[in-house]
Amino acid sequence: MSCNLTFGGRNDKKTVEEAPVFAPKFDENGLIPAVAMDAQTKEPLMLAYMNEESLLKTLEIGEAVYYSRSRQEIWHKGATSGHTQKIVEIRTDCDQDAVILYVDQQGAGACHTGRNSCFYRKVDLEAGTDPTALTFTEDLTFDPDSVYKK
Amino acid sequence: MSCNLTFGGRNDKKTVEEAPVFAPKFDENGLIPAVAMDAQTKEPLMLAYMNEESLLKTLEIGEAVYYSRSRQEIWHKGATSGHTQKIVEIRTDCDQDAVILYVDQQGAGACHTGRNSCFYRKVDLEAGTDPTALTFTEDLTFDPDSVYKK
Repeated sequence: MSCNLTFGGRNDKKTVEEAPVFAPKFDENGLIPAVAMDAQTKEPLMLAYMNEESLLKTLEIGEAVYYSRSRQEIWHKGATSGHTQKIVEIRTDCDQDAVILYVDQQGAGACHTGRNSCFYRKVDLEAGTDPTALTFTEDLTFDPDSVYKK
Repeated sequence: MSCNLTFGGRNDKKTVEEAPVFAPKFDENGLIPAVAMDAQTKEPLMLAYMNEESLLKTLEIGEAVYYSRSRQEIWHKGATSGHTQKIVEIRTDCDQDAVILYVDQQGAGACHTGRNSCFYRKVDLEAGTDPTALTFTEDLTFDPDSVYKK
């Protein structure tokens, strides 16, 4: 795969929506949201952001590379923990301002809290309960201290 | 369900990550990304944004209510087209700065282009092809002009 990739232009709405050309829109901070999903189970793993450099890097190496807003740097997911995300498929939406990554999650999970998915809580929606209460949908799958603080 | 809901506080990281309290983080523009997924197929339908009012409204009425960044107004999805999204489950992530909506999509689809999903194109990742090329993964399921321009 070439290391000199460039994205398509975003000259008009019809082209962005109907052309077979990847022309992602980066927001005023240069970022696009990327939702990583487990390619086997189709469960959501995490939502993070990419800048142009990290999206191009993702295409180049076939593993998810994000942009860390807190650290303000390129973030090759799993580079230190080993919990990389092998890219299986990338989709974009009608106006190309979001991407979905279907990945093979390596290691014990995607979440820094020690879980497979970052989306480990759901809102209680049953009638009569407080809809601002959350319930947990999964347990820890690994010890985050041993993975991230070693 | 009460119309006087309030979200939890975001005083410390541990509480946000491990407490059973919905304490969503709205960004500097007052928005949180919301990914709508088909509750049956688990396929992604769209990614949009909510402000606090629209998220509270979503909890109150049990249908997806977004905030339109282009129109700068509350956007009850499907209010005119009939393509509403009945909420089945809402999940949030570790730092509660994103939500996933599992929905029953009403009508012929979620996308204004006339498709079931906004994520109707995938990046060509096969070796040797141009990874900035897109291929289509679904056909039109309805005529957008007849739904949105009537």
